[in-house]
Amino acid sequence: MSGRLVIVGLGPGRAGLVAPDAEAALAAASDLIGYGPYLDRIAARPHQTRHASDNREEIERARHALALCASGRSVAVVSSGDAGVFAMASAVFEAMEAGPLAWRTMDVTVIPGISAMLAASARLGAPLGHDFCAISLSDNLKPWPLVCHRLRLAAQAGFVMALYNARSKARPNRLGDAFDVLRGVLPGSVPVVFATAISRTDERVDISTLAGAAPGLADMRTLVLIGSPETRQIAGTQFLYTPRSVLA
Amino acid sequence: MSGRLVIVGLGPGRAGLVAPDAEAALAAASDLIGYGPYLDRIAARPHQTRHASDNREEIERARHALALCASGRSVAVVSSGDAGVFAMASAVFEAMEAGPLAWRTMDVTVIPGISAMLAASARLGAPLGHDFCAISLSDNLKPWPLVCHRLRLAAQAGFVMALYNARSKARPNRLGDAFDVLRGVLPGSVPVVFATAISRTDERVDISTLAGAAPGLADMRTLVLIGSPETRQIAGTQFLYTPRSVLA
Repeated sequence: MSGRLVIVGLGPGRAGLVAPDAEAALAAASDLIGYGPYLDRIAARPHQTRHASDNREEIERARHALALCASGRSVAVVSSGDAGVFAMASAVFEAMEAGPLAWRTMDVTVIPGISAMLAASARLGAPLGHDFCAISLSDNLKPWPLVCHRLRLAAQAGFVMALYNARSKARPNRLGDAFDVLRGVLPGSVPVVFATAISRTDERVDISTLAGAAPGLADMRTLVLIGSPETRQIAGTQFLYTPRSVLA
Repeated sequence: MSGRLVIVGLGPGRAGLVAPDAEAALAAASDLIGYGPYLDRIAARPHQTRHASDNREEIERARHALALCASGRSVAVVSSGDAGVFAMASAVFEAMEAGPLAWRTMDVTVIPGISAMLAASARLGAPLGHDFCAISLSDNLKPWPLVCHRLRLAAQAGFVMALYNARSKARPNRLGDAFDVLRGVLPGSVPVVFATAISRTDERVDISTLAGAAPGLADMRTLVLIGSPETRQIAGTQFLYTPRSVLA
């Protein structure tokens, strides 16, 4: 008799941004699986086992979760933000499809959360107020030329962009390369926001322009927002927004 | 002495998907402003005034909220989903920029919520598991040729797409037109999902393909997800996901 597997997004960091359904799923689990610093955000409960792992072991972690569920445990896999946005949900379904057929009939659900891009947008005003896209800059799992292709088309489309995995120690120069690609299409005046650890006590927001954007303002916890040519900063304020309308 | 204005997303519909910060903001408000059916989702509280309006009066509603705040009231403007995604936050900042300078120094904050696309993606598995975009199909506020241009570029980029405002009584044919545009770029086999009233008691999910997608499956409450060529349905299940990796 298999157990239950729930994939939970913990939101951007602040406890007030975790919905009750997510809290209930965490409370009901016998086993919590996730990247260590995310597990640290969850209140300790008796009789609950924690399986912390390194951030890069997503697929092994997903297999472990499915195997525990198959053995009858009630498992919660935790991600930061929304579990479906560059996080654990895809890894779990990849592992399910590649695994034993019995894994496909288990009780598996995903509970949505507030993603980093939504938290960053709210913090700034409404930069995602019109058509937008979300792109991971990591080339661990896709070729870098494809990332550049997507950045170029997104700029040509006039999308506001939320850039995930913008910078890591292993890829210190990719964000600068991405800015160069975007400068080939977009005016240097479009706003660029470095939104770091939004909603946490060490939150930081840096507003720049594409012409002046310094990649060093990003670290592993930074979501980078690239405005469209329509995105505006309200003079005398820190508010950025993208209007709902685009004139012909 | 001005009051306070908070712009709150109520999530996709289910009470368990509203975060505590949003609940606290609603509880603290003297005045609630929003589209009637959204206000109906909020628990009644004594001494709280409700200002319900028609869905299409966004900018008037935003001005009303800012004026009430300027007069010292504690105002909550409510949206469904996330207030920053094709919802009220942009309208409030547009109205702020066009209004009296004093409106720029008032206490205005946005509280993020779980957007319809994140709720739909979680319900299906993880279709938004890799690069994606969100596009409003409404041509009330932008020219239809621009919508088509964005759809084409998004398809060429390989983005999964979340289509907002996919169908309304005033624009019954736009979704079919959009499918035709996408069929010019994408294989007919890509999954198309009609996700209606997700998380509510009358939730409905229809999974189709681009070749067979029938626009009539959408109504005003439907988010339409268009898969990328990488998006997969796991055989024998209803789970859809987009893998984290794209092979070179």
